Amino acid sequence: MGGVGFLYEGKTKIVEAIDDDSVILTFKDDITAGDGAKHDVMQKKGQMCSEITSRLMHYLNTKGVYTMFMNYVPPNKIRARKLKMIPLEVIVRFKKAGSFVRRYGGQEGEDLQSPLVEFTYKSDVMHDPLMCIEHLEVLGIVDRNTALKVIESAKESAKLLKEFFEIHNFELWDIKFEYGTDSEGNICLGDEISPDTMRLRKAGEIFDKDIYRRDLGNPMEKYEVVLGVCQSILL
Amino acid sequence: MGGVGFLYEGKTKIVEAIDDDSVILTFKDDITAGDGAKHDVMQKKGQMCSEITSRLMHYLNTKGVYTMFMNYVPPNKIRARKLKMIPLEVIVRFKKAGSFVRRYGGQEGEDLQSPLVEFTYKSDVMHDPLMCIEHLEVLGIVDRNTALKVIESAKESAKLLKEFFEIHNFELWDIKFEYGTDSEGNICLGDEISPDTMRLRKAGEIFDKDIYRRDLGNPMEKYEVVLGVCQSILL
Repeated sequence: MGGVGFLYEGKTKIVEAIDDDSVILTFKDDITAGDGAKHDVMQKKGQMCSEITSRLMHYLNTKGVYTMFMNYVPPNKIRARKLKMIPLEVIVRFKKAGSFVRRYGGQEGEDLQSPLVEFTYKSDVMHDPLMCIEHLEVLGIVDRNTALKVIESAKESAKLLKEFFEIHNFELWDIKFEYGTDSEGNICLGDEISPDTMRLRKAGEIFDKDIYRRDLGNPMEKYEVVLGVCQSILL
Repeated sequence: MGGVGFLYEGKTKIVEAIDDDSVILTFKDDITAGDGAKHDVMQKKGQMCSEITSRLMHYLNTKGVYTMFMNYVPPNKIRARKLKMIPLEVIVRFKKAGSFVRRYGGQEGEDLQSPLVEFTYKSDVMHDPLMCIEHLEVLGIVDRNTALKVIESAKESAKLLKEFFEIHNFELWDIKFEYGTDSEGNICLGDEISPDTMRLRKAGEIFDKDIYRRDLGNPMEKYEVVLGVCQSILL
């Protein structure tokens, strides 16, 4: 395996191999919602999300979490570990919101009595269906041991990020992670950590992709505030 | 607590307390599908489903499973243990079908590599959403220990029923159970076991509620065949 060149283009990122162990992720200016049904292009989005991802993953690295992050390549690229991605979204919820409320009812922003980790299968056509550990095993997506390792990493990473944002008076309501395995089979946090992939609130104000999902104004103004907070993390 | 009288009327059953520890379940002639969106009344349905439930639960009792079943009260009633019901459907799947295929794709009737237990929350308005053990805990529905006991009982009961039907050349594809707790807090299998609550096939022919869901003819003719098979279990 290995070599150099184009690997994959997703809704918001392009992945290119630069050597056997690393890739360049290029963050596009695209923003999407509703399994891709809603789509726009917003100037500076790729730049901001790549820098936020870089700083937050670097922060996690310094706290002992194994992430893909190697270097930030301004303005909108990241040099990252090459991973074989697991086709799951791993959501850590501290409060009820979004698809949780659509599925089970309750109020947006209501506390959960303890953090909840959910897996959804990455499939726009199937609308990212929820999967329990038993589904992952039976459908051969990952074995139980891998699922438990992912849960542990996701809980720890979400807790660290929640604490970081709390220092800046932001509330992290929930966050979505994606994982892969490196060439030695180690579980590694990949993809992106940005206002696209979490719900971040401050004094009732929204600083995440819900601004776009619900047409509440220009999301990029709020993403810029989040970037400012993240710039307290030195690369 | 306790006393005598009407307790509850559901889509297909009426529950009346007869003393502190037991109830009478009256099976109605109603058949419903699609969270109650489709509804009909079919002569002898209550009679057949109560007798099938009686015989299958008696069979499970003789194999060491703790069920609600006490006596069959012909034509359409069961004397049963009084239970505090857990608001969950507990589905054991041997093959892909129904909501599993709608959620995850695959072919109806395709084998699962091992039996899968799913929990859905009983709510027609929320369309019975899937829950993992973590949801049950966080939403305070049942604790992990209770969930694990329910899974164990459901797997064992489904396996016993699958083996029973196999003797008669029927394939049990999946089955839905409901559980409650008795006055001492023991987990007990309740509700109903009938062609309404399972997928039962023989040589490509359907012997369960899918006949009704998909408008494939008169379901009661097939329910009668299943009743005949169950009459090999002596009460």
